[in-house]
Amino acid sequence: MEAVLLGSGNVATHLGRALVGAGHRIKQVYSPTLAHARALAETLGAETIADLNAIDANADLYIIAVKDDAIETVAVQLPAALRGMVVHTAGSVAMTVLAAHAADYGVLYPVQTFSKAKAVDFSAIPLAVEASGEAALGRLEALANDLSKRVFHCDSRQRLSLHVAAVFACNFANHFYAIAADILDTHRLDFDLIRPLILETAQKVMEHQPKDVQTGPAIRNDIQTMEKHLELLGEDPALVALYRLISERIR
Amino acid sequence: MEAVLLGSGNVATHLGRALVGAGHRIKQVYSPTLAHARALAETLGAETIADLNAIDANADLYIIAVKDDAIETVAVQLPAALRGMVVHTAGSVAMTVLAAHAADYGVLYPVQTFSKAKAVDFSAIPLAVEASGEAALGRLEALANDLSKRVFHCDSRQRLSLHVAAVFACNFANHFYAIAADILDTHRLDFDLIRPLILETAQKVMEHQPKDVQTGPAIRNDIQTMEKHLELLGEDPALVALYRLISERIR
Repeated sequence: MEAVLLGSGNVATHLGRALVGAGHRIKQVYSPTLAHARALAETLGAETIADLNAIDANADLYIIAVKDDAIETVAVQLPAALRGMVVHTAGSVAMTVLAAHAADYGVLYPVQTFSKAKAVDFSAIPLAVEASGEAALGRLEALANDLSKRVFHCDSRQRLSLHVAAVFACNFANHFYAIAADILDTHRLDFDLIRPLILETAQKVMEHQPKDVQTGPAIRNDIQTMEKHLELLGEDPALVALYRLISERIR
Repeated sequence: MEAVLLGSGNVATHLGRALVGAGHRIKQVYSPTLAHARALAETLGAETIADLNAIDANADLYIIAVKDDAIETVAVQLPAALRGMVVHTAGSVAMTVLAAHAADYGVLYPVQTFSKAKAVDFSAIPLAVEASGEAALGRLEALANDLSKRVFHCDSRQRLSLHVAAVFACNFANHFYAIAADILDTHRLDFDLIRPLILETAQKVMEHQPKDVQTGPAIRNDIQTMEKHLELLGEDPALVALYRLISERIR
């Protein structure tokens, strides 16, 4: 396929590399920030555009990989006469935001968190696909199967639920890592001391359901230990309240 | 060293194996449940005892590796004339609970979560040591260095803070994995879809501080996305409240 990549952030970067790696061609990379577009376009062997009027109307696929709240802004600016399908890559944005701006449209959502500096094995990333019709879905699915071994269908509502689940399991879990780092820092201990424990906790749920491997004082209803923890957290009422709330839920 | 192991749970099992692996000898394994003591004692080449009166008074070390709230109960029952040092392995229990029951005493706390079925590389586990005096500390530290490359000193208060930090970063993080699993289940999606994301989130903090890699709608103050998430969670008021609370903290 010949694709145009609209965006130059983490998702655009990793998806662009995966597409080129699978033998597809990126014709153009668009970003409102020309320098960003240029940097990515160079690595993908693509043309750089900083103006959506310069978009190639004959590509097979237009991938809007920008921040969730900027998708519609980009879609609105697309020329009317594009030949190919338009897709976005977001978890929380309904497919229908593209309906007024393209004949064929869809979503290609990689369920992973990306950092520019860190390579990922794209073939292991679950890829959610959704499209406006059977034919479009067939084409998008074929492309997705070139990129990943874990392609699955899901509608916009399911995709949103996946995004919410990811907020809990990842964004919120990371916030708890940050709370742990603060507690250790307060007591002059290094965050490095609990890194093996964090990794082991994540690795445990790779083969088990989380509820089957829940440990800690709350699940044991070990009140004596929880009281000691609350006493230690005593100087921070918000943390005390949070500790009580989560422990109550676990119990 | 010749040691007596008081306990037959996960910590006792992994610590016992590591001691034997490092060339030390486990003379006896005690458990109030004789079958448990016997199963572990067999793998360690040790004698089984189900009565603390049968304890060998000439060992170098007595390791109390039982549940936090049972440590004192075991310590109280120890014969007065033990030759060696008595240590416990708990995160949240002060060293001083052993003071009335032994001449030399201390703590050897492995900062890791253990499952009986899963092997761990003990040499990579941070081991906190604390002892009642300089000489005892020297002996305990030497032993700890045989077991792990990551031995560190910490007092009982610091150890408690480490335990609280572990509750947030591990027990509470796992609870958020469980919430994610529930949300996915409600929308007929498999938990397996976010496993790569969970692992990547943990791996990111192996080299970074959590606050430097925080992602998600809350840190971006992406109100539109958060509103969609809250709408999806709407049927569960407790989850809505939790989502708001954690998002507020992150922001």
